[in-house]
Amino acid sequence: MFVDRSGNHHLSLAELTAMLQPALVEAGASDNVAGILALNCATAERDGSRSHGLYRVSGYIDNLRSGFVNGKAVPVIARPGAAMIRVDACRGYGRPALEAVIPEAIDVCRMAGTCVIAIGNSHHNGPLWLDIEPFADDGLVALTMVASVVAVVPHGARRPVYGTNPMAFAVPRHGRAPLIFDQSSSVMAHGEVGIAAREGRILAEGVGIDAAGNPTRDPKAIMAGGALLPFGGHKGSQIAMMIELLAGAMTGSNFSHQVDWSDYPGACSAHTGQLFILIDPVGASGGSTGFALRVEELLAELAAAGQERFPGERRIAAREKALREGISIEPAVWEDLLSLGAHPPE
Amino acid sequence: MFVDRSGNHHLSLAELTAMLQPALVEAGASDNVAGILALNCATAERDGSRSHGLYRVSGYIDNLRSGFVNGKAVPVIARPGAAMIRVDACRGYGRPALEAVIPEAIDVCRMAGTCVIAIGNSHHNGPLWLDIEPFADDGLVALTMVASVVAVVPHGARRPVYGTNPMAFAVPRHGRAPLIFDQSSSVMAHGEVGIAAREGRILAEGVGIDAAGNPTRDPKAIMAGGALLPFGGHKGSQIAMMIELLAGAMTGSNFSHQVDWSDYPGACSAHTGQLFILIDPVGASGGSTGFALRVEELLAELAAAGQERFPGERRIAAREKALREGISIEPAVWEDLLSLGAHPPE
Repeated sequence: MFVDRSGNHHLSLAELTAMLQPALVEAGASDNVAGILALNCATAERDGSRSHGLYRVSGYIDNLRSGFVNGKAVPVIARPGAAMIRVDACRGYGRPALEAVIPEAIDVCRMAGTCVIAIGNSHHNGPLWLDIEPFADDGLVALTMVASVVAVVPHGARRPVYGTNPMAFAVPRHGRAPLIFDQSSSVMAHGEVGIAAREGRILAEGVGIDAAGNPTRDPKAIMAGGALLPFGGHKGSQIAMMIELLAGAMTGSNFSHQVDWSDYPGACSAHTGQLFILIDPVGASGGSTGFALRVEELLAELAAAGQERFPGERRIAAREKALREGISIEPAVWEDLLSLGAHPPE
Repeated sequence: MFVDRSGNHHLSLAELTAMLQPALVEAGASDNVAGILALNCATAERDGSRSHGLYRVSGYIDNLRSGFVNGKAVPVIARPGAAMIRVDACRGYGRPALEAVIPEAIDVCRMAGTCVIAIGNSHHNGPLWLDIEPFADDGLVALTMVASVVAVVPHGARRPVYGTNPMAFAVPRHGRAPLIFDQSSSVMAHGEVGIAAREGRILAEGVGIDAAGNPTRDPKAIMAGGALLPFGGHKGSQIAMMIELLAGAMTGSNFSHQVDWSDYPGACSAHTGQLFILIDPVGASGGSTGFALRVEELLAELAAAGQERFPGERRIAAREKALREGISIEPAVWEDLLSLGAHPPE
């Protein structure tokens, strides 16, 4: 760790993880769960995710303290089929449940050609792209979806039913970090609307409705009892429905509209489920040219057609910067972390 | 068969299938392939699909005659993993390749919990929802995607790279026909733009660009060297990219922009690949309340929130009508079929 002239602390990933873990233990997580969540959160911060990095620490702590999330949960793993891993997260966070099966899932996928991981009775709080990166690092293709908290009005409906229901998709690249996109099913994510509200910006049309159900371009009206709209009209709405069915019903978990923290003051967490679909491209493609080379081929065609930005580029740039300079933490965020019980490196 | 007062012929599904098959055999298909394509096309017509029913017969014939599609292809089936079925369609249509593995895929999915079917080196011409209905009829959840023919400009690019790349998703319902949605990755499908052009309608903004790359609301300009835009901006564009990777690269097949019929006069067909992901909800949901009941639960909540239309309702209504009254064929379409070599029932 070092402190630069502007007062920013610069930490390695290991230092930041070690700093966060005690705060999560104090809030009620087991050492193992706290370590996994701390590493996940620190990694998101390292990769430049403002919305899923240190910004989320207080949410982890509130939900653990409230008892809505079980910080000491030990996931229960079952194998209902040769290519199906079912994990009951036992009201804990989804990431420790996933962590418990990553090596097994990779083995299953290589042997069976595909593997579904159905995590049920889980809470989600991290970035979805980080959940599938390990699979694409190993040469597999991965798709994941999570149901969240009621916030999105289905196309043609008058009130919200769906969560912002993100999906993420990862493929290996040739000699580079995987290509991963991660997108919510709403036009804008909740966090983005909140930032616009703070900055006093007016939104484009079609982002949300106010508490009375009328279209609005005011982000404050969306946050104050309003709701979000799905991206792409009825097509995005159908994607959101698919995610409710695959991540909610398929995993034996709540739909977004069924999440209920009313008995847990201070809580606000997506107590639903998460589905992963892994595919090994080696068998599927019938021994043709390597899949990762085909990914490069498509990306080259997109670049030739004028597409200048590709999913995940900012993350990769932020990661490389952090590897050189450490993860930079502004003084105000540093103070927040200390007040939340984080232990700074000595 | 009977002819009503308006001169419409009314046929059963079996009669219409038998009527179409000889025309496909004459165009170069084997008896088996012609039978499968004829049934598929007749079923689409029965279910009210104007864009994928009898309207497509001339396309089948042109592509078979040109030699671009191999009407006598015998699909080659492999099992690279316990839960992976790979089919080389050998330049034939995808539906006969699928038909060859449906029972095996259902068995695999029940035993392994999931099954991926990767059909490569195939042509697609039917409705996608019809490809996955058999799986949902059997209680499975199914997702399928197909790459098509270059027509859609990626978000941020200046010329088309993607096909209209449809995806379809099916889940079983409780005591009713499966819930299936089927949507292209463009704001509008090519067929819909063509209909608007014929009817002289002006489109909404954001549907397409003209041949010079400028936004246009004129469907004729889109058809005359222009291109379509993806639904939902960059999010729909990423869905289209995922479909190129899963249905093109993953199956060892062409991307949409690589389809080339220049050596086959008269041809115009999506020579790419198609991916299916099947999941058995029984194992995934950990023995919780039946999946089909959970589907009803979500649909009831959507209806309570004011959503009035659900995917596939028009298809189911058309099917029921056809079961009562036969499949009704207008005189002009009837004459077209005869001129294409169809054999009317005696």
